[in-house]
Amino acid sequence: MPSTALTQHDPRPVSPLHTLLRPLGLSEVQLRPTGFWGQRARVNAENTLPHCLGWLERAGWLPNFDRAVAGTLPQERTGREFADSEIYKLIEAYCWESETNLSQHLEQVITSVTERLVAAQDDDGYLNTNFGRPEQQPRYSDLEWGHELYNYGHLLQAAVARLRTHGEDEFVAMARRVADHVCETFGPNGIQSVCGHPEIELGLMEFSRATGVTKYRNQASLFIERRGRGTLKDIEWGRSYYQDDIPVRDATVFRGHAVRALYLAAAVVDLAVDTEDRHLLGIIETQWENTVAKRTYITGGMGSHHQDEAFGDDYVLPNDRAYCESCAGVASVMLSWRLLLATGKARYADLIERTLFNIVATSTSDDGQSFFYSNTLHRKTPGVATGPLEQSKRADSSQRAAWFDVACCPNNIARTFASLATYLATAHDDGIQIHQFANTDINADLRGDERVRLTVNTRYPHDGNIAIVITESGTEPWSLSVRIPDWAEGATVGVNSEQEEVQAGYFTITRAFTAGDVIHIRLPLIPRLIRGHDRVDAIRGALAVEYGPRVYCIESAALPPEHHVDDFILNPRTQLDVEGDRIIVKGWLEENLAPSWPYKAAATELSRPRRPITAALTPYHHWGNQGPVTMRIWLRTINNP
Amino acid sequence: MPSTALTQHDPRPVSPLHTLLRPLGLSEVQLRPTGFWGQRARVNAENTLPHCLGWLERAGWLPNFDRAVAGTLPQERTGREFADSEIYKLIEAYCWESETNLSQHLEQVITSVTERLVAAQDDDGYLNTNFGRPEQQPRYSDLEWGHELYNYGHLLQAAVARLRTHGEDEFVAMARRVADHVCETFGPNGIQSVCGHPEIELGLMEFSRATGVTKYRNQASLFIERRGRGTLKDIEWGRSYYQDDIPVRDATVFRGHAVRALYLAAAVVDLAVDTEDRHLLGIIETQWENTVAKRTYITGGMGSHHQDEAFGDDYVLPNDRAYCESCAGVASVMLSWRLLLATGKARYADLIERTLFNIVATSTSDDGQSFFYSNTLHRKTPGVATGPLEQSKRADSSQRAAWFDVACCPNNIARTFASLATYLATAHDDGIQIHQFANTDINADLRGDERVRLTVNTRYPHDGNIAIVITESGTEPWSLSVRIPDWAEGATVGVNSEQEEVQAGYFTITRAFTAGDVIHIRLPLIPRLIRGHDRVDAIRGALAVEYGPRVYCIESAALPPEHHVDDFILNPRTQLDVEGDRIIVKGWLEENLAPSWPYKAAATELSRPRRPITAALTPYHHWGNQGPVTMRIWLRTINNP
Repeated sequence: MPSTALTQHDPRPVSPLHTLLRPLGLSEVQLRPTGFWGQRARVNAENTLPHCLGWLERAGWLPNFDRAVAGTLPQERTGREFADSEIYKLIEAYCWESETNLSQHLEQVITSVTERLVAAQDDDGYLNTNFGRPEQQPRYSDLEWGHELYNYGHLLQAAVARLRTHGEDEFVAMARRVADHVCETFGPNGIQSVCGHPEIELGLMEFSRATGVTKYRNQASLFIERRGRGTLKDIEWGRSYYQDDIPVRDATVFRGHAVRALYLAAAVVDLAVDTEDRHLLGIIETQWENTVAKRTYITGGMGSHHQDEAFGDDYVLPNDRAYCESCAGVASVMLSWRLLLATGKARYADLIERTLFNIVATSTSDDGQSFFYSNTLHRKTPGVATGPLEQSKRADSSQRAAWFDVACCPNNIARTFASLATYLATAHDDGIQIHQFANTDINADLRGDERVRLTVNTRYPHDGNIAIVITESGTEPWSLSVRIPDWAEGATVGVNSEQEEVQAGYFTITRAFTAGDVIHIRLPLIPRLIRGHDRVDAIRGALAVEYGPRVYCIESAALPPEHHVDDFILNPRTQLDVEGDRIIVKGWLEENLAPSWPYKAAATELSRPRRPITAALTPYHHWGNQGPVTMRIWLRTINNP
Repeated sequence: MPSTALTQHDPRPVSPLHTLLRPLGLSEVQLRPTGFWGQRARVNAENTLPHCLGWLERAGWLPNFDRAVAGTLPQERTGREFADSEIYKLIEAYCWESETNLSQHLEQVITSVTERLVAAQDDDGYLNTNFGRPEQQPRYSDLEWGHELYNYGHLLQAAVARLRTHGEDEFVAMARRVADHVCETFGPNGIQSVCGHPEIELGLMEFSRATGVTKYRNQASLFIERRGRGTLKDIEWGRSYYQDDIPVRDATVFRGHAVRALYLAAAVVDLAVDTEDRHLLGIIETQWENTVAKRTYITGGMGSHHQDEAFGDDYVLPNDRAYCESCAGVASVMLSWRLLLATGKARYADLIERTLFNIVATSTSDDGQSFFYSNTLHRKTPGVATGPLEQSKRADSSQRAAWFDVACCPNNIARTFASLATYLATAHDDGIQIHQFANTDINADLRGDERVRLTVNTRYPHDGNIAIVITESGTEPWSLSVRIPDWAEGATVGVNSEQEEVQAGYFTITRAFTAGDVIHIRLPLIPRLIRGHDRVDAIRGALAVEYGPRVYCIESAALPPEHHVDDFILNPRTQLDVEGDRIIVKGWLEENLAPSWPYKAAATELSRPRRPITAALTPYHHWGNQGPVTMRIWLRTINNP
């Protein structure tokens, strides 16, 4: 049964059959523990992984499996329908991390958790702590909300990580039984429906790639083609919530629950690529394009509704209640990465960068032990923070929380940081492509066997200089491509010191490189004032500040005590002075007037007392790290009553 | 037991013990079936009442009571937890209407429905179709969401209407058993909690006034003082959702679910007034003031969140997803009316007028047979309308719907229109106060027995002229006060033709009136450009148009085909030309560009092709009556990329 693919060490989460670019795995790209991303990956390994494991035990979600074995379910079960998936996501993170750090401890966690999971699996492959026992609802009786297949999707992704970093073991065997059970139960002659939360499609696609078993991909294809035809129950928010409103081939934009929409789209790209269905790929490209133009925040955040964690209509992007779930940020990166591999277009890497710096990096605290669930653009009230041992609802204050009732994000962030190195660079037969800038050591075989090694060195985004040092190369010419970000006007690239100005997009140098060659990339880091599309109501008459790939914000901590960020008006002709990691702007601080009816005749002359002020803006990803505050990204420049 | 109050014919929904102003009942104010409000009241009586009754039968919510008797609950029960209340609200409407129209048919509906309700009541007074039977949840086992006490509140309000228009009967007797049961069960020695949806407090307060039974008021007081102390379970949206976060005496603004907050506040005013607790009254005045200044839309609409139908933080008033539930409009009128009676301040009557014209009038169609649940300020997509026999979710398109799954609004609107005449004028010993302008015949006894009669004649709001004709008066001087709306700059008032300019607020004429005296009020109807407080993000750089008490909007039907209202830019120096009920404005129509990343460097020069256009604005209350459209109230005047 196991094909030869199984024994291949292939440590990367996405490994398509036919793409333009080949993703480089963790054995080909090493992220050194320095610089912006290297430090975060280290904090993730040292703090976030054990933090999440501790919470999964404490919250009882991992013990649910022990209780299943002990027969004390459903009485003792804790957590929501998708609690099982959190263990799988964290195991995925441990697997990727075990590739980077050959620590005995990581391996022990994986094997001991695996034992507990395997013990709870039914003989026919079914595995879920929330369904199927006496006094529990029957299996697959609530496809809308039950999340059984969703949970499997994450289990399969974890199994892919285990298989590609370690090889066959009990976890992988458990996953094979699950995948077979799914094909049996939901195949052409099985239940003709889909899961309320797409994710099984992603799991089956990649597990098919990792195992070489085609039926898993066929099952993913069945799920994808079934969706959108009203199989699931209608709900108050409409079937668009779970993308069961329109078949994927007929849709033109992402809609409904953002994480659901993005996971589904990512799986569709996998299917399109592996089946060489260019038409289907083009459909997702169009949906991505419309969504990015009309339904995406400046941070790259997606999903504007609190109610259903969903995309809004076109240009419905309020800041006050921006949802921008951390998991939607992860899902957006997963989707754009697949599109980048398939097409090689810089716009996908640009959005990945924006999302990594402004959503993924924002969602965790400096110490990697507290998290935002949603990433609003405007925090009106400081809110009440929860303690380090307290389970928050959804981190609904200006402070990150240690754990949530719905704790999808911490584990999603954990697996993303543990595999971050695989999202930075790609190769093809003729060369290497650098998409994101971090301190990395890269090695890859070109044309099958021509080993190339290089090192990327940078303080980016604190500095716009990136030096790529070739440390090993054959004698044949090959191509090194570097993404020049869309914002980097006036960027220059030079090999061994001859700098030339280059445009945004990929700049490619083709030559016979020699060990010791240095490619210098200079991205001009100049803070930028940004205005938004005026169909986005909430940002009319307001400006934002960007600096390199990062969006900035104002926190009330930067203002005199007792002042709210909404008291601040930006001078639209302000200078932007860089001071360390902060940007100093000029504006005015308004005093409040007594409350009165807020709508006045347009001609009324009213002025609130105000005085000039300079204020320091913070990188958005770092907001809320200094205690309770109010915060906003878009700064108003005009004044009404 | 029954006190003398019972036999007193007193047809008004609110009858406080101690207030500055005495509300005039339906026997004192007759709304003639002409003019803006008279026509609506007629359509309500002729169309809305039978429409709602038909739906209560068809949806099965009234038959639930028959099923209770037949013993086929819970299997055959239909509707939500609060379905019982809809019957009570509609019976309240029928009772008020029966005062105006002494029709045999109305009386038959009331008595036949009463029979069906009474048959389902338990011996101890408990009455609910959703709890307490085998296979149903036990009584009062879900105070958070069960709505048992909420349902009673509406039952008691209906009983008040019945008692005051007709006198003691089976409905009133049923209500007495319910009220006694509530006092027994939730009294000082009973369950120490409250209902998740305030409303029982309002019902008990008024039922106490109508019956003279003080213990009902005491029970209302208990409920009011218990709330805010965390008796109810915490939920994802927080206990503010049901105002169980802060005791009412400690709060400074309305928060949480808007209808819940406003019903509670209205009951608190009742309690404060009847117990002469000036301090408590002042607390609600402050909460009202802060809410109106910071949490209210230009339409008077309240509640900006879809998620929890709740007030947002200060100045969180997005237009795209404005909720502004019709029932919150009704509740706001109920609250402001009580505050007006208690204080005589014009601001309460001003907000009532704004809310009646722009929320209550908006919520129904011309034919009174379809309704909006929420009253958004910006409709981005036309949506899919439901048919006249189709039950909509919550009228989630640009078209009003015949009925909703949660159909609180149609019956709430029905009872409001049926009692509308009682919200127009008041009296005290020395005179009469006209708060709202409609074609009415008013009679009242001043100083106990001095009969005064007058007639109000107007085409308002289509015309700013109001003529008040004195048709009967004693020889002693008395005062006629007329509210000059806050927007009516340059208004004049004259008795028998001598006009003098008056300020906003109440203008009082004290004299010995003679039959035949005519008081002319001239409100200058000039369309006004309005700008909003710039802390409301969504309306920065935008203007609205008001005309008299009405807010205007643009519908896509006013633009060339295929254009969206968001394509329109208002010329901030436009003339405002009145053309019938429409206002013609000048502006530009923009063409769309291909989709691209919507955030650009502020210095970028980008212009979309645009051309001058004139467009006709519609009164907001009349939008969506001409078929599927997009719509917006706030018109942008500036242009970004």
